[in-house]
Amino acid sequence: MRAEPSEPRRRGRRPAGQDTRELILEAARAQFAEHGFDRTSGRAIARAAGVDPALVRHYFGSKSELFGAVFAPAAIDPLARIAELAPAGPEALAEGILRTVLSVWDSPQGRKRLRPILAGLISADPKLGFLRDFFVKRMLGTIVEKLDVDHAELRVSLMASQILGVLVTKVLLRLDPLASADHESVVRMVTPTLVRYLTEPYETLVGEALQ
Amino acid sequence: MRAEPSEPRRRGRRPAGQDTRELILEAARAQFAEHGFDRTSGRAIARAAGVDPALVRHYFGSKSELFGAVFAPAAIDPLARIAELAPAGPEALAEGILRTVLSVWDSPQGRKRLRPILAGLISADPKLGFLRDFFVKRMLGTIVEKLDVDHAELRVSLMASQILGVLVTKVLLRLDPLASADHESVVRMVTPTLVRYLTEPYETLVGEALQ
Repeated sequence: MRAEPSEPRRRGRRPAGQDTRELILEAARAQFAEHGFDRTSGRAIARAAGVDPALVRHYFGSKSELFGAVFAPAAIDPLARIAELAPAGPEALAEGILRTVLSVWDSPQGRKRLRPILAGLISADPKLGFLRDFFVKRMLGTIVEKLDVDHAELRVSLMASQILGVLVTKVLLRLDPLASADHESVVRMVTPTLVRYLTEPYETLVGEALQ
Repeated sequence: MRAEPSEPRRRGRRPAGQDTRELILEAARAQFAEHGFDRTSGRAIARAAGVDPALVRHYFGSKSELFGAVFAPAAIDPLARIAELAPAGPEALAEGILRTVLSVWDSPQGRKRLRPILAGLISADPKLGFLRDFFVKRMLGTIVEKLDVDHAELRVSLMASQILGVLVTKVLLRLDPLASADHESVVRMVTPTLVRYLTEPYETLVGEALQ
């Protein structure tokens, strides 16, 4: 347990020894689940956690970094990562996203977090709609927006299908030999698929059926 | 409700109006779940349903056809379908499997069935291990066995990742524009990925990282 540099003003009681960071994470999880990503503010999370808003920024920076910290096993700001990769072009974006996804989720810790998230994404449970919203509107939406290609929505949905498929097959189903392949091998085998979806001329991508 | 041509001998009571076909399906579901695909016989299903084994064969043919009828929304024998497609070569096999998967699962009826099956596959619930066994050992195992390519397990696991990814993204997440794309468009966009996984020379497929 870490001692806080300055004790923030609180509304509720804090169980002895509980960490401010944990309090913020718990409050954030509840606020995101109740109001969704867009309608949750750092200020509301601070209020629910009974801490000063400055502490939320101090520990987590941006709201998407906080979202990442709540749901992902590694400290990552998914939207910042996309923005960082995008200027290098679709090939680098595809490769970078795949590598990041594997590094965040393909570990025993990642698997434990991923299972309920993916179960939530594929379930029709409206209580988990905020996860779907973040994934579809925020993450994929940011990729679509940053990608300078025609038919970006279609291309990004195809890319998402392959990346989600790797997560399901490698991380959750643990299907060998893919399950035991190291990340860089997977990046080498799968990136060309993603690059084709993002860059192949539209007419060839949706080409006519073979006669 | 259909009248049976000849009343089979029964052990248990049958609720009035319940169909023999339904009785067999229920018994099969329970037997597969309890004993797995390999250790369940048509005879044991017939015994559990209280019907003559000849009726099981009459209604469902093979054991894998019966498995398909229990879990898939369309009458299909997945193992027979694979065996039927394989002799035409990896390209035709990849395209045929993708087309069959879409036709079976990408419908409102298919979605309803697919959701719990996929949730079961990705959960760690040992009660649903028999679904995983059927998918991994039987379906993918049959593809590996019938495919005349090097590194078939790796290639088939990559193919499975893309097909499962399409199911998750198109059928369950309903991610547009993929969700509303017709099956033949998806077959045209995705088959080249599957063909690359199955046929690209191994050295190129797992190629060296870019320097």
